[in-house]
Amino acid sequence: MAITTALTRLLGITHPIILAPMGGVAGGKLAAAVSQAGGFGMIGGGYGDPKAGYGGKAWMDDQFRASGNARIGVGYITWSLERFPELFDQALEHAPKVFGLAFGDETRFAPRIKAAGVTLLCQVQDLDGAKRALDAGADIIVAQGTEAGGHGKSGRTTLTLTPAIVDIAGKVPVVAAGGLSDGRGLAAALMLGASGILVGTRFWATPEALGSDKAKQLLTTARSDDTLRTRVFDIVRELDWPEGYSGRAIVNDFSRQWHGRELELEQNLTRETEAYWAAAKAGDTSKTVVFAGEGLDLIHDIKPAGDIVRSIAGDAEALLKTRAGAEIG
Amino acid sequence: MAITTALTRLLGITHPIILAPMGGVAGGKLAAAVSQAGGFGMIGGGYGDPKAGYGGKAWMDDQFRASGNARIGVGYITWSLERFPELFDQALEHAPKVFGLAFGDETRFAPRIKAAGVTLLCQVQDLDGAKRALDAGADIIVAQGTEAGGHGKSGRTTLTLTPAIVDIAGKVPVVAAGGLSDGRGLAAALMLGASGILVGTRFWATPEALGSDKAKQLLTTARSDDTLRTRVFDIVRELDWPEGYSGRAIVNDFSRQWHGRELELEQNLTRETEAYWAAAKAGDTSKTVVFAGEGLDLIHDIKPAGDIVRSIAGDAEALLKTRAGAEIG
Repeated sequence: MAITTALTRLLGITHPIILAPMGGVAGGKLAAAVSQAGGFGMIGGGYGDPKAGYGGKAWMDDQFRASGNARIGVGYITWSLERFPELFDQALEHAPKVFGLAFGDETRFAPRIKAAGVTLLCQVQDLDGAKRALDAGADIIVAQGTEAGGHGKSGRTTLTLTPAIVDIAGKVPVVAAGGLSDGRGLAAALMLGASGILVGTRFWATPEALGSDKAKQLLTTARSDDTLRTRVFDIVRELDWPEGYSGRAIVNDFSRQWHGRELELEQNLTRETEAYWAAAKAGDTSKTVVFAGEGLDLIHDIKPAGDIVRSIAGDAEALLKTRAGAEIG
Repeated sequence: MAITTALTRLLGITHPIILAPMGGVAGGKLAAAVSQAGGFGMIGGGYGDPKAGYGGKAWMDDQFRASGNARIGVGYITWSLERFPELFDQALEHAPKVFGLAFGDETRFAPRIKAAGVTLLCQVQDLDGAKRALDAGADIIVAQGTEAGGHGKSGRTTLTLTPAIVDIAGKVPVVAAGGLSDGRGLAAALMLGASGILVGTRFWATPEALGSDKAKQLLTTARSDDTLRTRVFDIVRELDWPEGYSGRAIVNDFSRQWHGRELELEQNLTRETEAYWAAAKAGDTSKTVVFAGEGLDLIHDIKPAGDIVRSIAGDAEALLKTRAGAEIG
């Protein structure tokens, strides 16, 4: 079985489910597993800055190698990629099927991506961002709501942003992102006019994902009400995010201590940064960031990425066929 | 045509669409119009406190009179109703079909509502609230996300809160609320496991709603990105909302001046309160609150409430029948 939409036709895939290119989590192995199951996998290049604890040229070569010959894409944080033009060249040389850009102005990179015949996916958080991406020639627009784990914005939610972008996107497929972890989310996104969904957190809780087992376990037990959008993990990691962005993470001792006291954190940065990286080295998730989306309530286990693709697609198909139990007449 | 769900069966209605009992907006005329079109209308008693600019015993009698003999419900702000027990008695004497309680512990009121044979609708903003409402005997749970206009919480969104509550609600129908303004929203909510939707802002932009024409016009032109959750309008109106609540409103000169400077506003309360009510008397929407939800992008006109009920239901039916254009096979 398969759900065919504008997105599946564009990418030549079976299920309209894209792996979010989560930096430090979505490596080649996970991307390949999602694609092999009929979805579409993407390697998360993230910042491209080894300062973040992963990434860079050798790391990216390794990830493409790990993906074998699966048809996959690659995604980068736009404002950060601008500082590493050699990584942009490298990514194109690997001839990904899709190039994903999120968080910043894609105008500078778009022409070379399009000229290379690579599908341009732009992830946006508001209507102005969608308009800019459409002008830049985006082939796919990802409507990312504040529900999303990791970086994003707090202003708009997936539920209202998706149809609003659909209304201005014309024939460009819109993919909903943020808080979508199961078949109900995929079926709902299709009703909102999306052609598919981009899924992050649910795919982190897989054996194929990068990251520690401890963090993955936390995803299966923490609740949606335990997540928070905050800047404190960016501040302590000295990552210079532009204004307006924050990261949704599981509340822990560190965010409890510093969220709302950002200025004080900046004033104690030398001490706190040292302590942070020591805790990171020790794998202490009470003091270091575990990004997670608001779909956590729907995640209860660690299982292979392929099983997740198949269960999201299968559950959505059943809901669409039965109209979720609603009778019309 | 009609969409039959657990909610339509419970309430004996044609379309699974409930009018949000918006204080000062959802009067008897609007409630009756929604019910007569096959949805379910509710009068918004709000605070029950004439200090809010509407409400109280005589006002509520007037609204029930205006509703004629339509089958409707009534809703109150729970923490405020506790201060006006005579309004609770009055509401029950009017024998509403549904009694809605939002924002606070419904435990005190639930037994008498149930004993009177009135359907108890409880609107909640998180999982703990849902559990409390289920324990109190709620017959309908409204899962209200941060998208919603007017009061609510900032923590959870409709998209993730709805399925999470469905997962614990057993046979109690769950109704999604917040950001839902059209047929896409209803169809999506059904896919998430909801049995219907509760709609606010879209029904304010109707001739039958209370409130000024100027405010209604603003709803048709403002964008979702122009709304903000804030406490400043509660502070200046001296409404003592419990911690954790805020109201989503259209950004205007007043919120631009005071949002983020709440302490300073409190220090200048006498002056600002006087100025606020003078502006309210003059109908100045640049200085007084116009509550609105994040579904604003989908609202472009003022039209009769009955037309809205029929178009939301009709569009949702078409989406469910066609699976929003997705092909399965």
